[in-house]
Amino acid sequence: MSAVVLLGGGGHCRSVIDVIEQTGLYSILGVLEKEGFSCSNLMGYPLLGSDHDLPAFIEQNCAVVITIGQIKTSEPREKLYRYAKEAGAEMPTVVSPRAYLSRHARVGAGTTVMHEAIVNCSAEIGENCIINTKALVEHDAKIGNHTHIATGAFVNGGAQIGQRCFIGSGAVIHNGIDIGDGCLIGAGTIVRTNLPDGTVLKGQQAAIGMAT
Amino acid sequence: MSAVVLLGGGGHCRSVIDVIEQTGLYSILGVLEKEGFSCSNLMGYPLLGSDHDLPAFIEQNCAVVITIGQIKTSEPREKLYRYAKEAGAEMPTVVSPRAYLSRHARVGAGTTVMHEAIVNCSAEIGENCIINTKALVEHDAKIGNHTHIATGAFVNGGAQIGQRCFIGSGAVIHNGIDIGDGCLIGAGTIVRTNLPDGTVLKGQQAAIGMAT
Amino acid sequence: MSAVVLLGGGGHCRSVIDVIEQTGLYSILGVLEKEGFSCSNLMGYPLLGSDHDLPAFIEQNCAVVITIGQIKTSEPREKLYRYAKEAGAEMPTVVSPRAYLSRHARVGAGTTVMHEAIVNCSAEIGENCIINTKALVEHDAKIGNHTHIATGAFVNGGAQIGQRCFIGSGAVIHNGIDIGDGCLIGAGTIVRTNLPDGTVLKGQQAAIGMAT
Repeated sequence: MSAVVLLGGGGHCRSVIDVIEQTGLYSILGVLEKEGFSCSNLMGYPLLGSDHDLPAFIEQNCAVVITIGQIKTSEPREKLYRYAKEAGAEMPTVVSPRAYLSRHARVGAGTTVMHEAIVNCSAEIGENCIINTKALVEHDAKIGNHTHIATGAFVNGGAQIGQRCFIGSGAVIHNGIDIGDGCLIGAGTIVRTNLPDGTVLKGQQAAIGMAT
Repeated sequence: MSAVVLLGGGGHCRSVIDVIEQTGLYSILGVLEKEGFSCSNLMGYPLLGSDHDLPAFIEQNCAVVITIGQIKTSEPREKLYRYAKEAGAEMPTVVSPRAYLSRHARVGAGTTVMHEAIVNCSAEIGENCIINTKALVEHDAKIGNHTHIATGAFVNGGAQIGQRCFIGSGAVIHNGIDIGDGCLIGAGTIVRTNLPDGTVLKGQQAAIGMAT
Repeated sequence: MSAVVLLGGGGHCRSVIDVIEQTGLYSILGVLEKEGFSCSNLMGYPLLGSDHDLPAFIEQNCAVVITIGQIKTSEPREKLYRYAKEAGAEMPTVVSPRAYLSRHARVGAGTTVMHEAIVNCSAEIGENCIINTKALVEHDAKIGNHTHIATGAFVNGGAQIGQRCFIGSGAVIHNGIDIGDGCLIGAGTIVRTNLPDGTVLKGQQAAIGMAT
């Protein structure tokens, strides 16, 4: 088991801790957070210090996993990734043993693949991505760096998603669709056409009523 | 293997039988139904009698699983639950071995977690709930008693769902959303705002045409 | 391990190859395609010839798996199925070991059940269907021949889907709904009413904006 330190101590961190524990591959030393940040629940692991303390852990051959989530913007995650990389950190690809990663797929450094996510054959996923719980990346799909495929989103065969995107929970990307960089696709949205860089797309409205 | 008797003999009962068989933990004695009700298919198990016969089974140390479903109202399920509890029944938490229940999550008595459902870390689920096939309850989410999370519904991180709710198949509840008691969320509905007690919310309309 | 030859060399073929490899039950000889068709990526397996060469393989006791997909029409898949069947081919039911097929369910010849699909108790599925990755066919549901349940679609309890249908990715079919033959249900569509033969149904529109 190699030692890892986690960057970011919120809800996504708890999910990643659960995944790391299930892998049985890493010993979690604890969490680093922003200066002055206090964590409400780290599943029993200690808050070790702030981001500034990272180099000391890297020197001790600690690997690093970025454990902040990403919804509206990938910027904080990306910034931490560059910081850790420049500090010489090893950034493992963390894959839940309850996920399926085809032996014909490729997944970049620093990407985490959560429980029951599928990365199917000939799919290619960049660095520092989140393939969240129950998400599907089908055959031949390509996902750029720093992109988050949220819980239960379906990226179908041959679709391409750019860098720094957010594909919301339960969204469906049609076969072969090409989505540019920096796009934000709302939860449950069905994407049937190609989308240029920077598109924000939010699906369906719901009718509200009161129960009788 | 401990003996169980099932309350309710419809389609959801068949699904639960399949889950119970897969656990290998219980020996199913048969099904109790309403007076005068006849069951079309109990997967080979016998109809043992009516609800009124329950106390006799409890006296023989039979555990009880409630196997009627819940769509529009939780009332029949809740009524049976109180009846069985008052009669002194042991109501096991039934979890499919094909589901994932984080060791950091808590699930109440009488709740069933069906095949490929996920209950992630720090999630808390009340009593007498159904977490149906392929449903997701993400990290830190809380689900009240007598609530049914239908097939493939996604309850995201930190969301809170009240008691006696129905969250329809494929619905998506955003991170951190708070849904009150007695709410009914239609299939496929995306919930982006907090909802007070008793809200009925149904998503998208579909356009109909005939194939050429 | 029995030898199989695959009919159709596109993206769906790659997914099926991944499934067949995981089963460990078949040795894949290679792929047949239309006359003059060239395949870009067959995961290391050879293009053996065209459909016209099929009889020679059948004579050598090769089983046959149809590996073209189906979105708008089931016709090409159906045509190949009849051709192979008339030529005397054995058409195995291919089930991913990562899928769940209830022992109380029935699945026809030539149907493929992909990774993490569920076919629950008392469900019945016809011949030459695709139950795609992460799709759900719930208890008591019935699916006709030559129908494709796309990735992550949810067919709920007791629903009936006719022959030659396409149920799009992430679509949700309500409990007990009856969908006729030759229907096409778009991705993410929620089906709440019965639909006659030949219905085309496409759900939700999405609002498009540009990120700021």
